[in-house]
Order: sequence, then C-alpha cells, then structure tokens
Amino acid sequence: MKLYDFPGPPSPRRVRILLAEKGLDVDKISVDIRSGEQFSDEFKKINPNCTVPVLELDDGTTISSIDAINRYIEEIYPEPPLFGTSPEERAKINDWCHYTNVNGFMAVAEALRNSAPRLAGRAITGPRDVEQIPALAERGRQRVLYFFEDLDKQLEGRDFVAGNSYSAADIGAMVVIDFATTMAKIEMPEGLPNLKRWHAAVAARPSASA
Amino acid sequence: MKLYDFPGPPSPRRVRILLAEKGLDVDKISVDIRSGEQFSDEFKKINPNCTVPVLELDDGTTISSIDAINRYIEEIYPEPPLFGTSPEERAKINDWCHYTNVNGFMAVAEALRNSAPRLAGRAITGPRDVEQIPALAERGRQRVLYFFEDLDKQLEGRDFVAGNSYSAADIGAMVVIDFATTMAKIEMPEGLPNLKRWHAAVAARPSASA
Repeated sequence: MKLYDFPGPPSPRRVRILLAEKGLDVDKISVDIRSGEQFSDEFKKINPNCTVPVLELDDGTTISSIDAINRYIEEIYPEPPLFGTSPEERAKINDWCHYTNVNGFMAVAEALRNSAPRLAGRAITGPRDVEQIPALAERGRQRVLYFFEDLDKQLEGRDFVAGNSYSAADIGAMVVIDFATTMAKIEMPEGLPNLKRWHAAVAARPSASA
Repeated sequence: MKLYDFPGPPSPRRVRILLAEKGLDVDKISVDIRSGEQFSDEFKKINPNCTVPVLELDDGTTISSIDAINRYIEEIYPEPPLFGTSPEERAKINDWCHYTNVNGFMAVAEALRNSAPRLAGRAITGPRDVEQIPALAERGRQRVLYFFEDLDKQLEGRDFVAGNSYSAADIGAMVVIDFATTMAKIEMPEGLPNLKRWHAAVAARPSASA
C-alpha cells in the first residue's frame, strides 16, 4: 500500500503518527497541496473529493477519510493496538475520535478557512469553491476554546483521552490541538492543567514528529 | 444494554434501523428532546454533551456517537454484517459513513439549525447556546444539493452506497436524505435517477420504519 501525503496539514499527520506508533513504513507520494496539486485531473482519479491523505491498497482500493484509513491499518497490523482491546474500549475511543472531529477539528477548520486571506473561496475542502463566512470564523474560534475546556475535563485524573493506553483518540486530539495553536493561532488559555500535562506527554513521544 | 432514544430526529433513527436489520430489540428509554429533557441534570450524567441517542451497556459504559454505537453493535452481534465482510469493504463503508456525516448530515444540520425560528440560539447541539448564522443556513442548503449530486454519481450502476450489499453506509445516507427532505424541506431536484432508484429501494425495506 502507499500513502498520498503532504507535510504540514493535520489530516495526513494523523495517519503518519499512527503508522509510526506501529513501526510501519509505507511508500509515500507527495501531493503538493500548497500549489493545488490535489485539484489536478490526475489526483481527482485517485480521490474525486480532492483531499489528502489517501491510502491506496495494492488492489487499487482507495481510502480517503482518516478514521477509515487508521481503522484499516489497525485491522491489517493490529499491534500495538491503537483502537482498544475490547469492544467497550473501542467504543469509547471511537466516541472521542468523533467528538474530536466534530467539535475540535471542524471548529479549527471553520476558524482558519473562513478567515485566512489565502483561503478566500476555499472555506471548505473539496472540488467546489465555497465563499468564506467571517461570522463562522469567529464561532469556530469560540468552539475551539470550548473544545480545550472539554478535553481538559476529560483528562482529569487520566493519562489518555480514552481507554487505558495511548490510542487513536490521543493522536486525533493532539493533532487538533497543534492545528489550533500553530496553524490557526488559537492559543491554549491560562489554566487547563490536565490538557497541558497530557499534551506535553503525548508530544514527547517519538511518533509526534512523524 | 439500553438505548436512550426519541422518534423523529435522524441520529437515533440510524441506530434503530441498524438494530432492526439485525433483528435486535433493546430496551428504549424516551428522552423528550422537544421539551429539552436532554439538558436535564439527570440526562447530563448519562451524556454531558446532551445528545440523543446514547447506548448504555450493562456495565454502565455509555456510547454517544452514532458510528461508535453502530460499530459496537456490529461487533457484539455480527449477523447480518452491516460494516462489510473484509477490511477493504469495511474501509469503503467507513469512508462513505464519514463522507455522509460531513457533507450530508452536517450540511442539513447547518441549513436547519441556522434558520428555524424554534432553534434560535441552538445552532449547534450540545450544552452551550450558539447563535444562528443565516449565511451558514444558505451555504448548508447548497452543500446538501452537492451531496445529492455526489451520491447520485456514486450510485450509478450500483445497488448500494458502498460494498456489495446493504450496509451502514446505506442507512446513514437514507436517513440524511430523509432529514433533508422532511425536516429541512430541501427537495431532491429533477434528475438524479440513481439516487432516486436507490432511495426507493432502501426506503422499502421494513427496517426503514424503525
């Protein structure tokens, strides 16, 4: 299998970190999203929705959403487990992956994509142009602050976002926090000691630089 | 296990249909979201995010996102399979569940929650009040029309959204279509023959009335 990839944005990073935690090295093909290569006719054949990453299997199957890619890798290479070791633990990890996608990732994306001048007309990923809504940028920013609060509360007395060990839920949440603070320039506010303790721990794992 | 449930909105319906397809009957506890019961202190102990449905397991574990609930049920009651029978098929089904959530469900929710007078101040589900953004309602409506187009294209020459048999991807897409046309009053436009053929077929399954 091979990964269509690009350094910088959060979504491919979530896959690279999972691969690193499993000690896997797959072929990577760079798709330069800064220059718009994801909109090329060639890449549209791989993913008509024009998003990166895409995992392409040896039989030609393509997978383009992060949780689907990561669950596929987990199924083929189960060790170490990153989606839990029981149905109940897996459910809590899946719940937090979803919560982080909707209330974290999408909130940062709303804040960034509806305000950055370079993303004018590109308020949503995909093949179609969508105009920015400035009020949505502001709302997204507020929602990111709520997400920080919720995650801090969840991490009270816990070392990991869900379950009893490092998981895909930690990968997703760390990548969203970094997306917020580095790309969207939304700083973690004062306080939130649980969030900051956990973030320092997960960011110190070797996989974080993948 | 038991399901906190309410008739009408799309999210609990996705779980009820999956249960019906598997021939399962679980205890259901009604949470009257019309009267705001999801914001009660009692329900916040079950789901602090104040969304319905919630699946509560016998050990007290609660699961509150639809795909996590449905995947859990699939794992405990695998027959008939509704998330595919191979890792590759499962990945395509997961991809379409994600695509439908982001580009279908959330688009309808944006259109509805940012415009309906009864949802003023409730533009996003959850415990916090969020003001409506009228421009986002309009954008959501446009995105729903794009989703209809994309789904029609995907269904060309296919009986099911993903994989070779009826799956969770069909359940998700049908529920979103019905959410759009009945609750948000966004009609399917002229044309789109594949979408309409598929919708008539999945809507005729006994589970559709669950």
